[in-house]
Amino acid sequence: MDEFMQVAIDEARSGLNSGGIPIGSVLVRDDLIIGKGHNLRVQQDDPMAHAEISCLRDAGRVGSYRDSILYSTLMPCYLCAGAVVQFGIKKVIVGESRTFSGAREFMESHGVEVVDLDLDECVAMMDDFISKEPELWNEDIGK
Amino acid sequence: MDEFMQVAIDEARSGLNSGGIPIGSVLVRDDLIIGKGHNLRVQQDDPMAHAEISCLRDAGRVGSYRDSILYSTLMPCYLCAGAVVQFGIKKVIVGESRTFSGAREFMESHGVEVVDLDLDECVAMMDDFISKEPELWNEDIGK
Repeated sequence: MDEFMQVAIDEARSGLNSGGIPIGSVLVRDDLIIGKGHNLRVQQDDPMAHAEISCLRDAGRVGSYRDSILYSTLMPCYLCAGAVVQFGIKKVIVGESRTFSGAREFMESHGVEVVDLDLDECVAMMDDFISKEPELWNEDIGK
Repeated sequence: MDEFMQVAIDEARSGLNSGGIPIGSVLVRDDLIIGKGHNLRVQQDDPMAHAEISCLRDAGRVGSYRDSILYSTLMPCYLCAGAVVQFGIKKVIVGESRTFSGAREFMESHGVEVVDLDLDECVAMMDDFISKEPELWNEDIGK
């Protein structure tokens, strides 16, 4: 397992264990983690606190994102993909996109390299969550 | 002046007066303000706290956004436009797009109605800020 994706998965499980939506994210620069986070919609009543947004908030004002890689356990939605495009993150590595196809094409059309690890562990985590909490999941993706 | 845009402008000026970037936003449903906010990058060291994100965070978990209108003093960037598209906001009213063209086409390509009021007051506020704080402005839009 990619060590950084493992941290993102740990973030997702931490979010699940605190009553939230199991999606985690890590920002890496020069092989070091400079930010991490998980979805906090439930825990903070914050609809903008998708995992990637929480991660980028945690990283803070890092200057250029050009040499950063964003990891997420799930393919980013338009909100998070919008952050990637606006702030010039050039590479995104995701755990899976089978349970949610997200905004891959939008990112790629703006020159972002997107790598999908298609991990069974990430799929199982989301499948289980979505089957147990379909309304919460639909709320989180604006459906 | 549109009463809701006036509140967005007041938010922008409030942000400027607390040392921040003068962009404000308001979320309206059924002719009532259900959220408002301004850019908080400086005040909270939060690069994700664009005005529209702060506004949507302030509104909280409102359920469907289908009948909501998002006001912003400035054309939304990809981050904020991504939130609009993902959460199904159907109409965005902006103060101006002369100082920053933003992601209008992206929103329109996803069926969002975008109205640009092209207000001299909003242009002057941003022109003045950008001329005084060009580095901060470039940081805020990821340049």
